[in-house]
Amino acid sequence: MKIGIIGYGNLGKALERGARLSSEFEIVGIFSRRNIKAKYAKVFNSNTVFKYENVIDCLLLAGGSSHDLPVMSPALAKKFNIVDSFDRHSEIKEHFDKVNASALAGNHSAIVSCGWDPGLFSIMRLFGKSFLNDCRISSFWGRGVSQGHSEAIRKIDGVKYAIQYTVPKTEAINEALAGKKPENAKEAHIRECYVVADSAKQREIEEEIRNIPEYFKGYETHVNFISESEFLNKHQRMFHGGRVISFGETGGENKGTAIMDFQIKMDSNPDFTAGIMLAYARAVKRLYDMKNYGAKTPFHVPPYLLLENAYFDLL
Amino acid sequence: MKIGIIGYGNLGKALERGARLSSEFEIVGIFSRRNIKAKYAKVFNSNTVFKYENVIDCLLLAGGSSHDLPVMSPALAKKFNIVDSFDRHSEIKEHFDKVNASALAGNHSAIVSCGWDPGLFSIMRLFGKSFLNDCRISSFWGRGVSQGHSEAIRKIDGVKYAIQYTVPKTEAINEALAGKKPENAKEAHIRECYVVADSAKQREIEEEIRNIPEYFKGYETHVNFISESEFLNKHQRMFHGGRVISFGETGGENKGTAIMDFQIKMDSNPDFTAGIMLAYARAVKRLYDMKNYGAKTPFHVPPYLLLENAYFDLL
Repeated sequence: MKIGIIGYGNLGKALERGARLSSEFEIVGIFSRRNIKAKYAKVFNSNTVFKYENVIDCLLLAGGSSHDLPVMSPALAKKFNIVDSFDRHSEIKEHFDKVNASALAGNHSAIVSCGWDPGLFSIMRLFGKSFLNDCRISSFWGRGVSQGHSEAIRKIDGVKYAIQYTVPKTEAINEALAGKKPENAKEAHIRECYVVADSAKQREIEEEIRNIPEYFKGYETHVNFISESEFLNKHQRMFHGGRVISFGETGGENKGTAIMDFQIKMDSNPDFTAGIMLAYARAVKRLYDMKNYGAKTPFHVPPYLLLENAYFDLL
Repeated sequence: MKIGIIGYGNLGKALERGARLSSEFEIVGIFSRRNIKAKYAKVFNSNTVFKYENVIDCLLLAGGSSHDLPVMSPALAKKFNIVDSFDRHSEIKEHFDKVNASALAGNHSAIVSCGWDPGLFSIMRLFGKSFLNDCRISSFWGRGVSQGHSEAIRKIDGVKYAIQYTVPKTEAINEALAGKKPENAKEAHIRECYVVADSAKQREIEEEIRNIPEYFKGYETHVNFISESEFLNKHQRMFHGGRVISFGETGGENKGTAIMDFQIKMDSNPDFTAGIMLAYARAVKRLYDMKNYGAKTPFHVPPYLLLENAYFDLL
């Protein structure tokens, strides 16, 4: 199948690498607003993408969820089958509705919010709620790198390098495994920061980090100032991970419980996310071929569509 | 929705208990060949079931996979929407084809092989293959009670009580977590047996257990003879569990790996299985209402159909 990739940041590059792993994908081009050179594929300016509407089977969108995808996904879904990884959880319904209207108007198929959370973790939460009675679901992220939090620190005046690791608290995991109602995410995670900055400004910077609303305020935050060489040696990888624990009741008066515990670990967050998006690209083409138009989320996609061949042997 | 339950063994009883946990299910009746009394629901003879074809939204089949389901599922799928837990992995395609022909002929919907394996574990294996490159998947069962193996021991002359626990080997789990290609299931599991028998016959019985083909021969088998009182005190529960580990590559020349590790533990195998089957009963009614007839497996069912309400908040 012929794919296009919009954007060439970490995720766009990972999609290019991931697509090359399988002979089923042919990259028509990478579309970027910037004047870039891609590692393997041809590069075109974003605003030429509509020239390829009859060539590309699926466009994979590697833009950001704050500014890019809310505009790009609905605009492109009219003319292309698309897959995106829109990740602002509380706004997914609104995003879905806009993409759906556009895809239906253009007789195309779209799958939004494909990744590990939202995406794979969402499916685990839904399985918990569907199969277990009085299900208590706790989602944990990390230990791993949060790009958003790292960037928030880098914007502070005087910071040269910074990275933030999200770390779930062991006590919170143990409580989830024991079936306690989940705490809010703030209480269940530690924010571990490694920062390179001028020593004279460190006390001030630490104070500023701790008070960034949404990102750090209210969290247990550990700020570590380290040398530039330590940072460059030890803090360059974008590994991540996470866990969804669903604890619930079964059997009514027999008073049993059951637990579903899903854990992932990955060396590279963008590469793993790209693998998931490429599987949903396969699915979106098959939905389109079946004339099943409109927007979907991973909740709407029957699993067999993710894999091209021989799925009965996996049952 | 109105459901019927066919069979009243461990799984049939669990389906009755499970259905009572939610106000959305009304049990029209339990259908049995035997003259039984159910705990809560009305009981009818199995051969009267076709009288209820216009009343029952979904029939849940709680029969065995060796003899009951290969006959009952195709026979009933013509007149009813059905859900079964057919679990003979290598015969699922054949079973599916027969049920599919029958359901299509009668304009009904059917979902076969709903449970945790096949079912939930199958979906995990499919996700592994879909999202990861060169994916190595290992499935582990236990520690938990295998009904089939326990029964095989009980059939031996001189055995009064017996139970068999399937136990995955720690080394095999560690190898799967490290990305080694999976061994066959025989090498990855221990069969732990607790048997009550006349002491004079124990040596002979142990020898006989170790040589039962398919069930024990070739496995690391531990046979423990215990007293009747110890058996009755300590070995009455039908707990089970399992784990699917998918290890694969991401990122092409960047040479990363990712791991998806899904573990379940349950106090009661039939109660957990019943919870899964009831969710698929919800789905089969919705498929039927959409006129999406024929047979499906859990691979064919979009996850959102498993849960009645408000799924966007779980994304």
